Amino acid sequence: MDKEYVVGIDVGGQTTKIGIVNRRGEIVKQCVISSKYNAGEAALFEDAVASAVEKLISESSLKKEQVKGIGMGAPDGNYYDGTIVDAMNLPWAKGRVTPIAADIKERTGLPVIVTNDANAAAIGEMTYGAAKGMKDFIMITLGTGVGSGIVVNGSLVYGHDGFAGELGHTRIVRHNGRPCGCGLCGCLEAYASAIGVARTAREWLDMSDEPSLLRKVDEITSKDIFLAAEQGDALAIRVFEYTGRILGTAFADFVPFSAPEAIVLFGGLARAWKYIEQPILKAMNENVVFLWKNKVKLIHSTLPESDAAILGASALAW
Amino acid sequence: MDKEYVVGIDVGGQTTKIGIVNRRGEIVKQCVISSKYNAGEAALFEDAVASAVEKLISESSLKKEQVKGIGMGAPDGNYYDGTIVDAMNLPWAKGRVTPIAADIKERTGLPVIVTNDANAAAIGEMTYGAAKGMKDFIMITLGTGVGSGIVVNGSLVYGHDGFAGELGHTRIVRHNGRPCGCGLCGCLEAYASAIGVARTAREWLDMSDEPSLLRKVDEITSKDIFLAAEQGDALAIRVFEYTGRILGTAFADFVPFSAPEAIVLFGGLARAWKYIEQPILKAMNENVVFLWKNKVKLIHSTLPESDAAILGASALAW
Repeated sequence: MDKEYVVGIDVGGQTTKIGIVNRRGEIVKQCVISSKYNAGEAALFEDAVASAVEKLISESSLKKEQVKGIGMGAPDGNYYDGTIVDAMNLPWAKGRVTPIAADIKERTGLPVIVTNDANAAAIGEMTYGAAKGMKDFIMITLGTGVGSGIVVNGSLVYGHDGFAGELGHTRIVRHNGRPCGCGLCGCLEAYASAIGVARTAREWLDMSDEPSLLRKVDEITSKDIFLAAEQGDALAIRVFEYTGRILGTAFADFVPFSAPEAIVLFGGLARAWKYIEQPILKAMNENVVFLWKNKVKLIHSTLPESDAAILGASALAW
Repeated sequence: MDKEYVVGIDVGGQTTKIGIVNRRGEIVKQCVISSKYNAGEAALFEDAVASAVEKLISESSLKKEQVKGIGMGAPDGNYYDGTIVDAMNLPWAKGRVTPIAADIKERTGLPVIVTNDANAAAIGEMTYGAAKGMKDFIMITLGTGVGSGIVVNGSLVYGHDGFAGELGHTRIVRHNGRPCGCGLCGCLEAYASAIGVARTAREWLDMSDEPSLLRKVDEITSKDIFLAAEQGDALAIRVFEYTGRILGTAFADFVPFSAPEAIVLFGGLARAWKYIEQPILKAMNENVVFLWKNKVKLIHSTLPESDAAILGASALAW
């Protein structure tokens, strides 16, 4: 029997999305389960994933023999050994090594390949999205954190240990930088993640009396800032411009590494594209060495966001 | 007839080294010619290279049929199209595109492959030197400038345009940085090249009355600083420590990109290894995200310096 389907799984901090994908890159059936399990409950999460996979397969009237395998994108997922290593945002995977590929394989009988979520998104974008046909690009995921997937000569860069592409933890501010969740200060993630953007807004509101719609909000999120910007709020718009400048300055240092054709933005913050695109381009081109001035494309993902991660993860399994 | 030899050519700012290399990676015969030709004299340089190659072949009692080809490392050499593009330190190659591979092939009848000098050094190190057997490492060349060659999964990273690996032009100082020859300010090269080290010494001598052997030197070079350090000169030793700290801080931002097994130092400044090794390691491990703390090796080239560039270039031709 031809193996005409794969399963793509995107493990996020809040929810895990699971989809069955055919050879044309169409998600034929999908579901969402919770990722919220406590410390010590990795097995419960794995049981839930396995049950959901079995259920999706049977609901799609497929036999398991038609499914080639499972591709999984997860925070701190390691391609080489199929583990999740000390994932900060997943209590059940924090401070330990979770052999998730082996565990899910044991529960489903299907081969499982794991990589980190940003790598999965990069593969999705290269296989089905904005980076189709590109051999050299850098994917930057702007979500709760800042992740990255780096493609060199058509292949994902995994590095010596499988963890390559942690560009969110390069230093954009070397002196007096904000503390980052990783323990360092001044990381790109501390400024350009959804949380980083909210921090910028709160800092700026504290520093002046400038009127802003955001003053009415108790716990400011990046979505609040986006909504305020949409209503013309000057401070909110400047927060995005500043975030764009930070990103562009960082990209100027990424480009000399791999000379990418494009930098592809993906994730929640990329929704604020119209506010961040020009500041990114300006800062990137002002700060990059002459070889690449005005030469590197900046694009944002064209995949429906909910699908991209599933598709990317699934592409691993072919 | 078996093609048992290749020619390796290392084009430097002052001299060009040419060697005939056998399959065991031994340089069987070599010579050095001048690289100093003026603007408009590229053809004269190419004639000189071709004559030297022909002479070496005949002096080695070889037939040209025994030579498989020529590998060439040159500043701003482009692997994809065999050109040298606007090389700052070569007057005859500055402000123009020199199709050096085609030109030398026309003159010698031998196929020619070009890459930049740091890439050639990385290939040499991987084929014959300290990085033998490594699939993921970053080579940093500390010479007149700061170059880099990045190896990912056993292959050199060339990037979309062939110019990948210009880590000397990432920003180590974002505010008030020193002007760099490339037009930016605060580049790693402005601090950690031989010229950068000399700039540090001159700045520090101007800033205080601290006694130093270097005060007797008119035009301080990195060699003068090394010799002073060897005599116990405190300021000279601190210059190297500072340079090491700058390098380590920069490396901490390179590591998250490709998760290398090692960073390999090569070139003139690597001679000051005993002064820079510990400061580099300390700064790298303090500034890198936890995934790689105390995990990335720092090594220096074990190839005889004069040979490494020839060997690296020659390895391109196999």
